[in-house]
Amino acid sequence: MPAGPFASEDDILDTLGRYFPLRKPGVLVGRGDDCALLPGGKPLSISSDLFLEDVHFRTSYATAEEIGHKALACNISDLAACGSKPLAFTLNLGLPRQTDPTWLNSFFAGMGSLASRYGMALIGGDLSRTDKLLVSVTVFGEVIGVGGFLSRAGSMPGDAIFVVGALGLARAGLFELEKRGRSALEEYPKACQALLKPEPMVDAGLMLARAGMNARPPALMDLSDGLVRDLPRLLGLSGETGVWDEEGETLGAELIIPAGLLHQELIAWCRANGKNPVHEALLGGDDYALLGSCAPDMLAALHAAIPDFWEIGVVTAGDKIFCNREPIDNLKGFDHFS
Amino acid sequence: MPAGPFASEDDILDTLGRYFPLRKPGVLVGRGDDCALLPGGKPLSISSDLFLEDVHFRTSYATAEEIGHKALACNISDLAACGSKPLAFTLNLGLPRQTDPTWLNSFFAGMGSLASRYGMALIGGDLSRTDKLLVSVTVFGEVIGVGGFLSRAGSMPGDAIFVVGALGLARAGLFELEKRGRSALEEYPKACQALLKPEPMVDAGLMLARAGMNARPPALMDLSDGLVRDLPRLLGLSGETGVWDEEGETLGAELIIPAGLLHQELIAWCRANGKNPVHEALLGGDDYALLGSCAPDMLAALHAAIPDFWEIGVVTAGDKIFCNREPIDNLKGFDHFS
Repeated sequence: MPAGPFASEDDILDTLGRYFPLRKPGVLVGRGDDCALLPGGKPLSISSDLFLEDVHFRTSYATAEEIGHKALACNISDLAACGSKPLAFTLNLGLPRQTDPTWLNSFFAGMGSLASRYGMALIGGDLSRTDKLLVSVTVFGEVIGVGGFLSRAGSMPGDAIFVVGALGLARAGLFELEKRGRSALEEYPKACQALLKPEPMVDAGLMLARAGMNARPPALMDLSDGLVRDLPRLLGLSGETGVWDEEGETLGAELIIPAGLLHQELIAWCRANGKNPVHEALLGGDDYALLGSCAPDMLAALHAAIPDFWEIGVVTAGDKIFCNREPIDNLKGFDHFS
Repeated sequence: MPAGPFASEDDILDTLGRYFPLRKPGVLVGRGDDCALLPGGKPLSISSDLFLEDVHFRTSYATAEEIGHKALACNISDLAACGSKPLAFTLNLGLPRQTDPTWLNSFFAGMGSLASRYGMALIGGDLSRTDKLLVSVTVFGEVIGVGGFLSRAGSMPGDAIFVVGALGLARAGLFELEKRGRSALEEYPKACQALLKPEPMVDAGLMLARAGMNARPPALMDLSDGLVRDLPRLLGLSGETGVWDEEGETLGAELIIPAGLLHQELIAWCRANGKNPVHEALLGGDDYALLGSCAPDMLAALHAAIPDFWEIGVVTAGDKIFCNREPIDNLKGFDHFS
């Protein structure tokens, strides 16, 4: 391995080749040509996200390996939220001039380890020189059988609202890491881990898709902007509305989130910082949990099948969202542009 | 339309919605959910590219409409190079704080006009705040029938080497636009147009794919880094080599490119700047022409069917590339990292 900066695109591609096999079953043409070619057959789920230095992560406290992992994990989380099985991805990468080979090896190792866990092929992408690190990933997943794609749409009054994963934990991790860097890992290891290296809920997504094959499928989405911003999207109250019936009735929710059920590190962090744990759980951000709703008669089976499955409330016929009987209108989630 | 900067992601999505229909035939689930869903059936060609301010374009002389057009055109060119029919795309967009609604409308208009010409649906993506404009597009195309995917691989000694489109013209345009901004359009309109608003060779790509259905298919690629860098890739002499048989024989080429056949604006520009037109044509860059090879008995039909189809030489059994009997080793194309 060269000791200095990379000399050329080909050097970077050689490094990448060590972590991502060129050929995988299920890919007709891999990277190296103008296009990759995926076989027809089952419908293909597709999602694409940016992962940008100083917007989505900082190199001051996130390791190369964690950045590589999370850039792909955030995208896989979208596949999980549609009940899809990860298959392949493309990677567009912008590297600053000072990126050294050791850093890049670790970045690819973090991403490659997650990719290989799910058998995902890296099938294409682009490289460029940038001022700050830039990662743009597009992921492809397979739907498991007819009706196996879980959309955000379909919630009905009386449905149970559920979450799979922890609420607000990554938010506490972000706050502490921003304040005091990696030394935060000593006091809040799980919270920092939740932010730095989230685990996409692929198995839970597939389980929910299977549960929907012989019944009305759950409505499901990826919880990444915080419950206060994402729950209105699940209920069709905001966001691009293409997936909802415009004639449909408006929906609301009544949530019950007892502070005692939140992660103990979130509780401890709120106590130390004079914050309300339930509010922090609602604000969240970077949770990469799953948020969904389903018919109540589906709950027992889902509880039994899915670890960290958590019923947090019920869909109502109104258009307001309450948590522990308080309206949540005054809490604001994250918007890149406000 | 608000006069000031955009207030939120939702404002930007509303603007985008005016230029990109939410629903298109052939898309099962469009944007607005965690994933889009494309139907199974035919194999899917996939390509992804970055298009970055001050790396791939400048806002000082490229209009918003041209930037929107080219960001998508470069990606469609990869589909054309595989003989695929454009179907859909995802868009990851980073916008600087000062981006105004008028600029963004024009950007979407330029991209939307090209998308609608090919019936492409915008099926997903991501928005973020960035220091410089950032566009990351992933495109999806359909293969037309069995064996209709045109790979870079498959050149054989004796095959004709061909180009569809102009060589070196965008290079002259880039040089002049960098030197004197849009006033360059007066003297070199076609060269500037070639750089600012390239037209992907979709029809030619489909024609070449059809020609390959009942015969040995042409080898084909997108000519974007200049012939001196891209021809060795076509011949399997550099680049990620997954598409070539590692046991295969090495290949070379003998090119004949008479200066008189180059675009008259390139000739005029070379005369004015003391440059060798053939060298400039070989160096190229941003040509977005197609480069390929085929059995000689296919040439007559291709000449007849494809405007701007141009035979430039022959594949040889050696591993050297000559143009007009000179080795081209001393010319260097563009590498983002050198």
